[in-house]
Amino acid sequence: MPVLVMKFGGTSVANLDRIRRAAKRVGVEVAKGYDVIVIVSAMSGKTNELVGWVDEISPLYDAREYDAVVSSGENVTAGLMALTLQEMDIPARSWQGWQVPVMTTDTHAAARIEDIPPANIMAKFGEGMRVAVVAGFQGIGQDGRITTLGRGGSDTTAVAFAAAFDAERCDIYTDVDGVYTTDPRITAKARKLDKIAFEEMLELASLGAKVLQTRSVELAMRYKVKLRVLSSFEEQSDEAGTLVCDEEEIMESNVVSGVAYSRDEAKMTLLSVADRPGIASTIFGCLSEAGVNVDMIVQNISEEGRTDMTFSLPIDQVKRAEAALTEIKGKALNYAELITDPGVSKVSVVGIGMRSQSGVAAKMFKVLSDEGINIKVITTSEIKISVLIDRKYMELAVQALHDAFELEKAA
Amino acid sequence: MPVLVMKFGGTSVANLDRIRRAAKRVGVEVAKGYDVIVIVSAMSGKTNELVGWVDEISPLYDAREYDAVVSSGENVTAGLMALTLQEMDIPARSWQGWQVPVMTTDTHAAARIEDIPPANIMAKFGEGMRVAVVAGFQGIGQDGRITTLGRGGSDTTAVAFAAAFDAERCDIYTDVDGVYTTDPRITAKARKLDKIAFEEMLELASLGAKVLQTRSVELAMRYKVKLRVLSSFEEQSDEAGTLVCDEEEIMESNVVSGVAYSRDEAKMTLLSVADRPGIASTIFGCLSEAGVNVDMIVQNISEEGRTDMTFSLPIDQVKRAEAALTEIKGKALNYAELITDPGVSKVSVVGIGMRSQSGVAAKMFKVLSDEGINIKVITTSEIKISVLIDRKYMELAVQALHDAFELEKAA
Repeated sequence: MPVLVMKFGGTSVANLDRIRRAAKRVGVEVAKGYDVIVIVSAMSGKTNELVGWVDEISPLYDAREYDAVVSSGENVTAGLMALTLQEMDIPARSWQGWQVPVMTTDTHAAARIEDIPPANIMAKFGEGMRVAVVAGFQGIGQDGRITTLGRGGSDTTAVAFAAAFDAERCDIYTDVDGVYTTDPRITAKARKLDKIAFEEMLELASLGAKVLQTRSVELAMRYKVKLRVLSSFEEQSDEAGTLVCDEEEIMESNVVSGVAYSRDEAKMTLLSVADRPGIASTIFGCLSEAGVNVDMIVQNISEEGRTDMTFSLPIDQVKRAEAALTEIKGKALNYAELITDPGVSKVSVVGIGMRSQSGVAAKMFKVLSDEGINIKVITTSEIKISVLIDRKYMELAVQALHDAFELEKAA
Repeated sequence: MPVLVMKFGGTSVANLDRIRRAAKRVGVEVAKGYDVIVIVSAMSGKTNELVGWVDEISPLYDAREYDAVVSSGENVTAGLMALTLQEMDIPARSWQGWQVPVMTTDTHAAARIEDIPPANIMAKFGEGMRVAVVAGFQGIGQDGRITTLGRGGSDTTAVAFAAAFDAERCDIYTDVDGVYTTDPRITAKARKLDKIAFEEMLELASLGAKVLQTRSVELAMRYKVKLRVLSSFEEQSDEAGTLVCDEEEIMESNVVSGVAYSRDEAKMTLLSVADRPGIASTIFGCLSEAGVNVDMIVQNISEEGRTDMTFSLPIDQVKRAEAALTEIKGKALNYAELITDPGVSKVSVVGIGMRSQSGVAAKMFKVLSDEGINIKVITTSEIKISVLIDRKYMELAVQALHDAFELEKAA
């Protein structure tokens, strides 16, 4: 029988009623003839409680013990889901990561899945079991100890199972009903996309559209797993939600698929840095060691032998970045001045159509200019153009771009 | 280095403060030079929460899924305890049952430990680890799935580890400071015993002195594990608590060690049952199938070819017993009448000294008679005499017996 993977996030299994509701959705797919692999998260709030205890005991905790503790929430949900399905007369059993086994690297708390041998679960499907409920987010390292995949890791578990079992599709049930052209709270014209290409989803996810863990999308792209995002709180048809898929499967699409934003950014500029090889490595190596996540980077030649280096970062990391750069001033690094602008936001337009169609950047800049919005930094990739602007213009920029690229209309 | 096993029950690890307190006790033993195996229960209340969910989903649950769910509480405590010890600079790590592995039978929810290979943990002790924290109550069955040992099973885990690692002692930290000659709530003269023989502890435990899981005492007796019961809420010396040990290690003891009781008993009598071979098997087989735990059984010849059969049982099982016996009346079993007395308690005196000294029974009956207490049923074993009496006399009987055998005085 064809295999379907269904993943339910924490809000979708928050209590016994929601678990029953999710189990009913599973029952619908079983009735269609699928053998189903259900990936479950911990009941919402449980993982935070466990993480809180670990942090309280030991701020610099042993990640192996962290993993042993925080993985327990998923085990509880997996057992409860299996019991609920059995109660509906659907042959089901639960698996913990080490039982499958979900083989991962030994990088505790941020492990990567290396292999999922399908033999054990396939044998049970062969014996008449219809649903394998698997605890998400966890695996077993080469050291024989429990690993976890990082927050949101259950998405990645789901996609990895879909790849390993050659599943027809991987359905991610969550508390939103799909991926939108932009945040509906910013413009009511935001439209749910029926399909979106993996590459676009990657740009949207890393830009703050927090629907799927980025790694799960990378994995789906690599193994060509059809990924569907849909709501566990609505009655669903086969066409519900948003399908994240290969761009070849998207016949028609707008040049721009969506407008993403990240509100709380800061911009820092190092003025008059000596322009010599290795200088970028010094600056960003120092920031990386300080745990600063640098996003956009631009470098301009300002005068002979000196340059200005500008980068953006999350606003709550500004103090750490300032401390780190002040620490090395006059030692590893010479610069005239460090200027911080904590009042910026990032707005991006994303679309695979941009690869074949020019003029998107020019149109974006004109739209912003017409609204009187000054652009502070620009970076571009093949399918994305991002700008930093004053935070007060962020909503206006998103609305104007959404209108200008007519994203409220399907292609 | 010598190995010590320390077990902490649910109230001793109820929150992070109590876990820290328990960890300090572990630190004291590590400082003395022991390699320590710590067995932990779930934080108090956690297992009940999990069991409640399972019951709500499915009254007739799959015990394999029950085990997968309810074992998670111990995993959390084990990780938190290991982190707490590490924070005190004590090299420690946690083990879940399947990691050791604690090999058990496949009788889910009531599994028995079959083997605990010490190699993995001993190797880590050899590398400088000082504390192995093991999740109690759980193991792995031959089916590769998680098993649990029944409520109170962490005591059994602790004793099994002490046997497998040839530990110097197995310390059970709990919320009482030892085993008493009787319940201190009934007589203030109750005295904590420094030592008690395994056989006596077995009689006391199964009589309702619920300090240790009965199976753990059986196991300790078989493998000659020195078992100590002590409080996790008091400063402790090496002589604290009560040592449960082989009778050879008890130089001096009273003839009677303790007076036990079980308040809420009922007595049932089947009048005029045909006295033929197999009749006891019919009656008690029927009750066993109905889930009734029969305790005392006495049979009297009443008339030619007929007999009366009397037995005691917990009062909350009377309805079930009556239904079962009425069901088979006139079919598998002929009897004249079923008489139920729901108003009785059981009082027992226990002591290994009774084996070599006669007159204990006679003295017990005289004490009760002097107080005007009528004895309804008597049963005896080598080291125990039990009587059923009217419930209203229970406290009086315990006090009078405690006085008469001078249990307030050490031997």
